[in-house]
Amino acid sequence: MAVISIVMGSDSDLPVMRKAAETLEAFGISFEMRIISAHREPDLFFEYAKGAKERGIKVIIAGAGMAAHLPGMCAALFPLPVIGVPLYSTTLGGQDSLYSILQMPPGIPVATVAIGGAKNAALLAVRILAVSDETLLDKLADYAEEMKEAVMAKDEKLQKDGLDG
Amino acid sequence: MAVISIVMGSDSDLPVMRKAAETLEAFGISFEMRIISAHREPDLFFEYAKGAKERGIKVIIAGAGMAAHLPGMCAALFPLPVIGVPLYSTTLGGQDSLYSILQMPPGIPVATVAIGGAKNAALLAVRILAVSDETLLDKLADYAEEMKEAVMAKDEKLQKDGLDG
Amino acid sequence: MAVISIVMGSDSDLPVMRKAAETLEAFGISFEMRIISAHREPDLFFEYAKGAKERGIKVIIAGAGMAAHLPGMCAALFPLPVIGVPLYSTTLGGQDSLYSILQMPPGIPVATVAIGGAKNAALLAVRILAVSDETLLDKLADYAEEMKEAVMAKDEKLQKDGLDG
Amino acid sequence: MAVISIVMGSDSDLPVMRKAAETLEAFGISFEMRIISAHREPDLFFEYAKGAKERGIKVIIAGAGMAAHLPGMCAALFPLPVIGVPLYSTTLGGQDSLYSILQMPPGIPVATVAIGGAKNAALLAVRILAVSDETLLDKLADYAEEMKEAVMAKDEKLQKDGLDG
Amino acid sequence: MAVISIVMGSDSDLPVMRKAAETLEAFGISFEMRIISAHREPDLFFEYAKGAKERGIKVIIAGAGMAAHLPGMCAALFPLPVIGVPLYSTTLGGQDSLYSILQMPPGIPVATVAIGGAKNAALLAVRILAVSDETLLDKLADYAEEMKEAVMAKDEKLQKDGLDG
Amino acid sequence: MAVISIVMGSDSDLPVMRKAAETLEAFGISFEMRIISAHREPDLFFEYAKGAKERGIKVIIAGAGMAAHLPGMCAALFPLPVIGVPLYSTTLGGQDSLYSILQMPPGIPVATVAIGGAKNAALLAVRILAVSDETLLDKLADYAEEMKEAVMAKDEKLQKDGLDG
Amino acid sequence: MAVISIVMGSDSDLPVMRKAAETLEAFGISFEMRIISAHREPDLFFEYAKGAKERGIKVIIAGAGMAAHLPGMCAALFPLPVIGVPLYSTTLGGQDSLYSILQMPPGIPVATVAIGGAKNAALLAVRILAVSDETLLDKLADYAEEMKEAVMAKDEKLQKDGLDG
Amino acid sequence: MAVISIVMGSDSDLPVMRKAAETLEAFGISFEMRIISAHREPDLFFEYAKGAKERGIKVIIAGAGMAAHLPGMCAALFPLPVIGVPLYSTTLGGQDSLYSILQMPPGIPVATVAIGGAKNAALLAVRILAVSDETLLDKLADYAEEMKEAVMAKDEKLQKDGLDG
Repeated sequence: MAVISIVMGSDSDLPVMRKAAETLEAFGISFEMRIISAHREPDLFFEYAKGAKERGIKVIIAGAGMAAHLPGMCAALFPLPVIGVPLYSTTLGGQDSLYSILQMPPGIPVATVAIGGAKNAALLAVRILAVSDETLLDKLADYAEEMKEAVMAKDEKLQKDGLDG
Repeated sequence: MAVISIVMGSDSDLPVMRKAAETLEAFGISFEMRIISAHREPDLFFEYAKGAKERGIKVIIAGAGMAAHLPGMCAALFPLPVIGVPLYSTTLGGQDSLYSILQMPPGIPVATVAIGGAKNAALLAVRILAVSDETLLDKLADYAEEMKEAVMAKDEKLQKDGLDG
Repeated sequence: MAVISIVMGSDSDLPVMRKAAETLEAFGISFEMRIISAHREPDLFFEYAKGAKERGIKVIIAGAGMAAHLPGMCAALFPLPVIGVPLYSTTLGGQDSLYSILQMPPGIPVATVAIGGAKNAALLAVRILAVSDETLLDKLADYAEEMKEAVMAKDEKLQKDGLDG
Repeated sequence: MAVISIVMGSDSDLPVMRKAAETLEAFGISFEMRIISAHREPDLFFEYAKGAKERGIKVIIAGAGMAAHLPGMCAALFPLPVIGVPLYSTTLGGQDSLYSILQMPPGIPVATVAIGGAKNAALLAVRILAVSDETLLDKLADYAEEMKEAVMAKDEKLQKDGLDG
Repeated sequence: MAVISIVMGSDSDLPVMRKAAETLEAFGISFEMRIISAHREPDLFFEYAKGAKERGIKVIIAGAGMAAHLPGMCAALFPLPVIGVPLYSTTLGGQDSLYSILQMPPGIPVATVAIGGAKNAALLAVRILAVSDETLLDKLADYAEEMKEAVMAKDEKLQKDGLDG
Repeated sequence: MAVISIVMGSDSDLPVMRKAAETLEAFGISFEMRIISAHREPDLFFEYAKGAKERGIKVIIAGAGMAAHLPGMCAALFPLPVIGVPLYSTTLGGQDSLYSILQMPPGIPVATVAIGGAKNAALLAVRILAVSDETLLDKLADYAEEMKEAVMAKDEKLQKDGLDG
Repeated sequence: MAVISIVMGSDSDLPVMRKAAETLEAFGISFEMRIISAHREPDLFFEYAKGAKERGIKVIIAGAGMAAHLPGMCAALFPLPVIGVPLYSTTLGGQDSLYSILQMPPGIPVATVAIGGAKNAALLAVRILAVSDETLLDKLADYAEEMKEAVMAKDEKLQKDGLDG
Repeated sequence: MAVISIVMGSDSDLPVMRKAAETLEAFGISFEMRIISAHREPDLFFEYAKGAKERGIKVIIAGAGMAAHLPGMCAALFPLPVIGVPLYSTTLGGQDSLYSILQMPPGIPVATVAIGGAKNAALLAVRILAVSDETLLDKLADYAEEMKEAVMAKDEKLQKDGLDG
């Protein structure tokens, strides 16, 4: 049974949002991935968002571009944490979706991550679950260690091979 | 019976949005004015937006600030024209609400006016009704004539009294 | 006889603006498509905009880039709804045309859609005509239903085939 | 024992950040409030952030203005959720702190809320704790109900008293 | 007979645009000052702009705010230099009028000065007239000398009286 | 003998600035084209700018990118009109050069054209010379007529061949 | 004999730039403070900037607003470090001076600090001198200690007196 | 023994940051080049930054993208000059890293150069060392001479070969 729901309004968002899925998978967290549009099927969206808690969802990760209403409307209907991923578009560089997701009015919080930051959205979800799950905390420690070692390896390579190595 | 519905998410939007009401009044168009929040009462909002057409509403004017989802969600639920008024806020000067209202994805149009442009929202609604109402067209012509005369009067005053008049 | 006039200042705007034409066509709405420049042929432009209503035009859709004056000048000369489409350019990403179209002073409204949003401009025009045309309302309902089914199909495919399907 | 730590770099941030404290208080959640600067006392900051988990902290809420490094450095040292509150300043309207907090590189997530959004930061922290605390979920439901009723009351007042009431 | 025409769309622009008038006066250049709106009285505006050359106008200085079409439409109708002054407004800080004036398409140039730069607009007009008027060149040299002496006097005062003088 | 001086800081600006040269050529106006850097050879630049008037230059067209100081420093040393062309760069889209050229302090005007607007810079120079040269006014009228006919031809083609012609 | 030169184009910049003077004073570093305009007195400015090294100046701190050319032109004429302080203005919030100072082309570096950051400009100058002056390093260590203690005192006060103390 | 330390958070920054290395090499200045992440290995980073002075480092050049904390945290831990290089990214064009580096709070200065300005970062470091090193001053004079001659050669070529040479 999924504890995280990754939702987006269009399959054109999949290339970015799949990074969230892959990250959750690496942490062994069960998730669902849905294409649902708050604008094009508001009734279905309402059902989805209102029913999510009952289905066992603990965190929603919502990716959206342009006038991105999906994360905010999720947060209006689902009482647990909603993480918003602003998606890049050529015209305004993602600043439109960023503002549409971030600038929520008092009362309805959305946890916003960087433009295109689907991976960090997943890691934030893991951290949220880790608040009450020691196993995940251990996995996060391993993940941090791996990141550290990857940077160290790059530095070592640079020291050994030089700029043109 | 109201043919225009002016809606906003908070009574703090009234000082701007009342200009829409006053303009409609000047044109003798019946309207309702509602405070309904898509974020804080999504169920009521759904009822409102889905039922508007049945109640005889022809155009919705929706004013909203920050991550302004009200106009876009209206356009998802109400099939006739929705006019969005982005509202100014100190932090981002209204650019957040502008993008949240304007940058709607293909399929769900919102007619966006200037930041704080509640008066023009009403005039746009009048123009929309005037498409099938010759009387309103005449009133719009009178209105245009008055605007013209007001500018002419200012110019005449300047020519007569000079810069320090 | 055309009821919608799609106008732009240059044939370089055609690749975007043709989406408006195609959408109107899909709704069976008669339209004209014109290349007229407010800057390069102001006299012709004046004639065009002042005569539009007499020729039966109900809505003008005006696309323009950079210092986009075409939509605003249409709204000054044509008393019915004018829809402005800001066009993208590399230097400022369309923000120049957006501001030039959107920020109209009180009295002269332009219904602005997203940068490059020619399709939504057409849909907005359809909604405007639908205010007094029940047949169009039905077509809009069909259109909404198709959009909904398209998203549902994408979601079903994702559920069936998975991320790598 | 505090489960939430509210931290900021200067006492000049208190007028905004106290809204986070007041909101947590309303939910009966124990918290600490600290003034610690990552720039002016990096050693103390390191101790604070590295020791937070051991002291029982489940979520850090970090408010910061200008080149806001506090939330991101917290997220580098503390393995559980970090919520960043970008603070407004006159020169760049808070866009500097927004970008400094939001645009974290992959691996180190910060949950960013609106500029000045200390209240939503607290509500997000409550939602995070509510993932494993049914009592908080109930309180969040009550809070949502109160918000809804407040908007309904404003609408009723407007319907009863009119625009000039 | 006026050789420079200062034009603006509203008397609310006078506090800024009068600096242009005062500067021209200081150089002994004859000018007219007009309030004419391209949006609210397009016919009068057309007459004004098309007739300006015949009336002996050599340069138009046009100040405008928001979606500022006045300078660009002047440049479309008047064949000699048009100087545009973008006017500040609270919502977008004048960036809307700046883009609306500056980003003219190839073929129709507008000489744009700083936001609110009415004084520089006048000085630019003086420089333009000075191309064929040696007396104005001399006056410009005097003006430059005065500016230089004013700065030198401030520096001398600072050196003499110190920071707290 | 050149009456217009086109100057830029690097030969990498030539692809844009040559449009100014070609336009002047089309109007039969004599010009020089120089690569001079205010930053990399300030002494030579000073000589160039201070000597320009004596050499018969009536207008300087200065193109510059990034922190564009060339136009403003020309205006500080040359008493006749200086036209600034902000050049596009990938990082900030030309907004850096735009602000560096446009926002001149009172006293030192620069006539700024659109980002990359070298052609309009030349046309503005022609208009400036036309203030005291009737022949150029005639050529400008011809040029305007050609522009008009070009747009008319495009419209005719569209009417004849349709969207897919 | 002054080793640091603080320069600005107008006495209106003194309220901000005096913070640089006060900071240098606190570190016992000799400095001069000059009002010199690159635009209004380019000859004097050239003398100033070219002669600075001979007069013993080691670092120039240049504050400037709008199209800020002073720091960059200093860096073109003075071979040692130039620190630029972008100054705030209402219209563009200092973004114009920021870009004009920061975006220097390769070859001519300017060390840019925050908008209005005159204090940090002075501290940067102190750090530069400290590269070859151990006494200054000690003073910087004391200064850092004081900053740390000031934050600690604020935190202690908050812990003791609480939010409303 | 290195006197300059070039540091970046990832090897993906090498293509830009190597320009700093090449420039220092051309001036015969010893340097080290390190890949260290303040976010991914805060402990190692602390050691690096705190130990730099002891190891003989006089200036740190830190390049970073997105929410760039590396330069500011270096400046918090290392008492001598820190030069920050904001790195370009597609989404926000480097404006995120620019603000994160530039807008440091009072007390902790970072010398910021242009977006991607690694070469100028190195030249600024050379100027800083030249404050107490006459040989470097001579080399800087040679470098300036070479830059001047390069521009002169380009101008000569243009004069000789013309626009199409």
